[in-house]
Amino acid sequence: MTYPVGTQGVVVQNIMRADQSVIDGLAACGVATVHEAQGRKGLLASYMRPIFSGARVAASAVTISAPPCDNWMIHVAIEQIKANDILVLAPTSPSDAGYFGDLLATSAKVRGCRGLIIDAGVRDVRDLTEMNFPVWSKCIFAQGTIKETLGSVNVPVVCAGELVHPGDIIVADDDGVCVVRREEAEEVLQKAQAREANEAEKRARFEAGELGLDIYKMRDRLAEKGLKYV
Amino acid sequence: MTYPVGTQGVVVQNIMRADQSVIDGLAACGVATVHEAQGRKGLLASYMRPIFSGARVAASAVTISAPPCDNWMIHVAIEQIKANDILVLAPTSPSDAGYFGDLLATSAKVRGCRGLIIDAGVRDVRDLTEMNFPVWSKCIFAQGTIKETLGSVNVPVVCAGELVHPGDIIVADDDGVCVVRREEAEEVLQKAQAREANEAEKRARFEAGELGLDIYKMRDRLAEKGLKYV
Amino acid sequence: MTYPVGTQGVVVQNIMRADQSVIDGLAACGVATVHEAQGRKGLLASYMRPIFSGARVAASAVTISAPPCDNWMIHVAIEQIKANDILVLAPTSPSDAGYFGDLLATSAKVRGCRGLIIDAGVRDVRDLTEMNFPVWSKCIFAQGTIKETLGSVNVPVVCAGELVHPGDIIVADDDGVCVVRREEAEEVLQKAQAREANEAEKRARFEAGELGLDIYKMRDRLAEKGLKYV
Amino acid sequence: MTYPVGTQGVVVQNIMRADQSVIDGLAACGVATVHEAQGRKGLLASYMRPIFSGARVAASAVTISAPPCDNWMIHVAIEQIKANDILVLAPTSPSDAGYFGDLLATSAKVRGCRGLIIDAGVRDVRDLTEMNFPVWSKCIFAQGTIKETLGSVNVPVVCAGELVHPGDIIVADDDGVCVVRREEAEEVLQKAQAREANEAEKRARFEAGELGLDIYKMRDRLAEKGLKYV
Amino acid sequence: MTYPVGTQGVVVQNIMRADQSVIDGLAACGVATVHEAQGRKGLLASYMRPIFSGARVAASAVTISAPPCDNWMIHVAIEQIKANDILVLAPTSPSDAGYFGDLLATSAKVRGCRGLIIDAGVRDVRDLTEMNFPVWSKCIFAQGTIKETLGSVNVPVVCAGELVHPGDIIVADDDGVCVVRREEAEEVLQKAQAREANEAEKRARFEAGELGLDIYKMRDRLAEKGLKYV
Amino acid sequence: MTYPVGTQGVVVQNIMRADQSVIDGLAACGVATVHEAQGRKGLLASYMRPIFSGARVAASAVTISAPPCDNWMIHVAIEQIKANDILVLAPTSPSDAGYFGDLLATSAKVRGCRGLIIDAGVRDVRDLTEMNFPVWSKCIFAQGTIKETLGSVNVPVVCAGELVHPGDIIVADDDGVCVVRREEAEEVLQKAQAREANEAEKRARFEAGELGLDIYKMRDRLAEKGLKYV
Repeated sequence: MTYPVGTQGVVVQNIMRADQSVIDGLAACGVATVHEAQGRKGLLASYMRPIFSGARVAASAVTISAPPCDNWMIHVAIEQIKANDILVLAPTSPSDAGYFGDLLATSAKVRGCRGLIIDAGVRDVRDLTEMNFPVWSKCIFAQGTIKETLGSVNVPVVCAGELVHPGDIIVADDDGVCVVRREEAEEVLQKAQAREANEAEKRARFEAGELGLDIYKMRDRLAEKGLKYV
Repeated sequence: MTYPVGTQGVVVQNIMRADQSVIDGLAACGVATVHEAQGRKGLLASYMRPIFSGARVAASAVTISAPPCDNWMIHVAIEQIKANDILVLAPTSPSDAGYFGDLLATSAKVRGCRGLIIDAGVRDVRDLTEMNFPVWSKCIFAQGTIKETLGSVNVPVVCAGELVHPGDIIVADDDGVCVVRREEAEEVLQKAQAREANEAEKRARFEAGELGLDIYKMRDRLAEKGLKYV
Repeated sequence: MTYPVGTQGVVVQNIMRADQSVIDGLAACGVATVHEAQGRKGLLASYMRPIFSGARVAASAVTISAPPCDNWMIHVAIEQIKANDILVLAPTSPSDAGYFGDLLATSAKVRGCRGLIIDAGVRDVRDLTEMNFPVWSKCIFAQGTIKETLGSVNVPVVCAGELVHPGDIIVADDDGVCVVRREEAEEVLQKAQAREANEAEKRARFEAGELGLDIYKMRDRLAEKGLKYV
Repeated sequence: MTYPVGTQGVVVQNIMRADQSVIDGLAACGVATVHEAQGRKGLLASYMRPIFSGARVAASAVTISAPPCDNWMIHVAIEQIKANDILVLAPTSPSDAGYFGDLLATSAKVRGCRGLIIDAGVRDVRDLTEMNFPVWSKCIFAQGTIKETLGSVNVPVVCAGELVHPGDIIVADDDGVCVVRREEAEEVLQKAQAREANEAEKRARFEAGELGLDIYKMRDRLAEKGLKYV
Repeated sequence: MTYPVGTQGVVVQNIMRADQSVIDGLAACGVATVHEAQGRKGLLASYMRPIFSGARVAASAVTISAPPCDNWMIHVAIEQIKANDILVLAPTSPSDAGYFGDLLATSAKVRGCRGLIIDAGVRDVRDLTEMNFPVWSKCIFAQGTIKETLGSVNVPVVCAGELVHPGDIIVADDDGVCVVRREEAEEVLQKAQAREANEAEKRARFEAGELGLDIYKMRDRLAEKGLKYV
Repeated sequence: MTYPVGTQGVVVQNIMRADQSVIDGLAACGVATVHEAQGRKGLLASYMRPIFSGARVAASAVTISAPPCDNWMIHVAIEQIKANDILVLAPTSPSDAGYFGDLLATSAKVRGCRGLIIDAGVRDVRDLTEMNFPVWSKCIFAQGTIKETLGSVNVPVVCAGELVHPGDIIVADDDGVCVVRREEAEEVLQKAQAREANEAEKRARFEAGELGLDIYKMRDRLAEKGLKYV
């Protein structure tokens, strides 16, 4: 059974995950390539930035729908984490509060969590950096949260402008965050890998000094459109 | 005597400062802990970001109320600095101008200044980084400023949304900036240290694999509120 | 012949460039000094940030006027690059799309390009960092672009709030980006170097503990304006 | 059959719509009441503002997924409009362009369209106001768009942070925009009407001078939490 | 006794208010004049906009410090309202939630409340407009709030960047919002009225075609600074 | 002789203006049509909004380059106004200050000024509305300005992202602001009028129920691109 976006008060315990080899393959391709390979969709808003650079992750989403400034559901979600999952938190109303810090990261990491995607704030970023626990967030803010109102775990959420279902694959690196639907993951991986192969060949030609104008045979179409060299 | 926020044309020369050991204790606790310890107050807006990561400072505020795009008062303020102070500048109207650069930092550092909190712009950030002179600012911007209009030094200011009195303690690290009232500093330190001790114990339990749901005994209250596992 | 801002469908092939020694001299001075030396003008908006810190560049602008979300003209522009040029891209309507990534950087670098200034998005930032190819951009975003509509190369553009003519000198470092008009470059360099000499002398006095109040003889004027010490 | 968010190149011609009496009932309740009645979900981001005040609409969503700065799909969508529908456009990447103006409004209105919700720009707002054709948009901007790339009509979209399925009910007034899932519309209407009845009774008591503290019996709980009157 | 900014859990019942004739005098002068008269201080941030145009109010502030997304304290505050007061709400952490709507406005109005200044969201704006109950807010947003956490009533707050003490005078019109300290109100009024008289005389001269350059005798000083007419 | 953008300390007294009948013709066409007619260029940023709705103006630009928070040059500029001119102010560094209010408007209006375009703040907006003096501004803010630093009058400026030369034609209405180069004004007017004629014919067909798909013969090209109806 599936729950609609916005369902509150529910924890879905059994979610489907993509094959780990597919997930790892997507990690190797990175955000830009995966985004292109799936038809230029799935990118979270550009304000989602990593707290430290150099991390590159792909993992299955354990989703959290949380009230503004209330991080109670993160504790609930951590119990649902399996190895190689990633937490994805979307507040039900905009919030910059610091829902997540080093204690929750410790707990999540013990269970194999690979990181956090949060359309809100995070804190203890120096500790998280030392733990090598990557977070992509809307902001860094120490503002404390409460534990008063229910949300949900593992229902679909809209996070930073993109729909994320539990079990979808999150790919995240220095370029930002991209979501791949679980059902499409294999096909996207194939296309991404094909794209990478093609890019390697192109890169060699660029390195040899060929121009994109020639490699992609653009000159005629530019002339047709009326481009004038003066 | 105290001056109201907004007083212009005044330099208060003798301000009270907290005990240095208290200040140092707050530095060791860091922003997130101190913010929690004092009842979740005192955080400056999340747009206040450090120009380099890794700095952790606590120091007594020497406050500057400055006109927009006019940095004259910084020169006045530097004379008022004592060792282990930090400058806190709030413009009287929003400004992104670069009020502060490497020459002012050199002068401030010679007098023992620990850094700058500025709700405006800063420049020469590479030099400041090399000098290990930390700045938390609204932006990085080289725009020059003038020296035409008086402001004040060591009157209360509202900086990035928080009231700062001269002599209040500024705690700043990678999570942002928090202000502690001088009169409350000792009590806040005690609470912050108690909180740290408690967190150390919690961290050990999390590392051992216990869940927050159990450590904080949340399961009953979640059930009462109606949380459903499906 | 010159073309007005907003001309579309034109590639200007021969542009004038400043003397390389002048350009190199400006690079050594850096953004803040050059901005001051030319009368506090020429700074691009403060949202233009480098994708990695530590780069300091001065180079001749090869300008690109590109439609929103359409990077076709970058391919056209790369053919126009000479050694020690820098690309400057302004979209004709606001866009955060990722116009530029590692393949284009490879092609540009082969031709001697020193970097990119783009009032839009960039992607593959990890690769660009490893290539040591500096970019100052409005944002980091992997969103793909199309190749459907003409723009222009080497016509004047307004980029991040500043007018840039082809062949103008771009100075960029951790403080942001500044444009110097080609016709004024020599004079600006002289003023910038004079300023640097003057700053070195001032820095020594600050390091020796002198105050700006005394170095710049500010005390009388402050008193005249009515500043009160209490 | 349903299509996932992000599907491109598809026009779904037959969508299900809620009963018109239910839709009209929701219009009468307004955004704030409907949002509360469905458990505080469904609100589009607060930057979605009406181009003129006083409009209050509820209608079935005909959704448009459109490339940035490309309004081709609006022409396709207009053919799919039935009386009392409303267009909901979400760009596939952020855009402020003016996708929609008076000609498109004329065409849409002839077919019975009740308005437009667009997470981008709109233009000709004076004409639209005179036509009494309401629009809730991210901005007002005259920037022209192209017709080069396919999008989709009547696939689910994320618009201003909320998931909208074709046939969902859009409620919009001076408070903003709220989406109600078609499957939940009847139940939401019942709750909204119950809420309205309750509010009428409360309003009478407030008008008579009773306090919320007494009407809602808050005093004891406030005291328990520790509120002190001084 | 006074309470510091940030005090939680306290309701101060007896606050001092300025003389009503002074308050009414300030209303007649308006925001821009009052702001100038008190030395260009006291303006709340420019994002504080009225929900309808044409309102001009001056009133004594009943302050509310409220948790993010929690409007419980508004009920507490309404009991403290006396005729010709105005509510001033500052959240303890940024929030866009719709803390206030028509029911609360009804209750406040019955007690003589003149309006609301809120550094957060408001809803039911059409009803509020019909009631002629003016609100200056950060945004219009219907998002519901909870009643779980204590704040305070009639302690000093920082609202939209300005410190407001209970009993300070709020002046608000189409230009925005300005706060006048109670202790300074009479003096500010005198200066504002003097300014108005002076402006009336200036207006007559401008209407007669005289130039500011002559009225204010600016030509010499401009020439001295080096202005060149070409 | 022409002066570059950024020139300070100069007042150009004789500027060329377009023929008044051309200017009036552009006013009748409005912003959206003029923008399209000149090849989709010339739009100022969408944050430039009118202080009241319903104004539609075209006029010759008298440009002002002003320091941040310093409105001295407006007095200088007013002397340069001829009937049917409009003031265009660009600060040399971002500023929200209220450079302009009812006294300056009175003075400008007496000389035949048609309005103000300002990439900064404006105040006394209620008075300006009553005077029917239209302003398009970045914000409404009462913050006072100083008169200390020279700028220029009638040199080219970059205002809200667009280059404006003195004597260029500004077209402004509820859709925003567009600049037309003086040299291109006649040709743009012809194209705009042709466009209007064409739109009138299109509007009639839309009103008769024809679809854009048919009027513009889009069906084949959509099918070619692969659009699927399901």
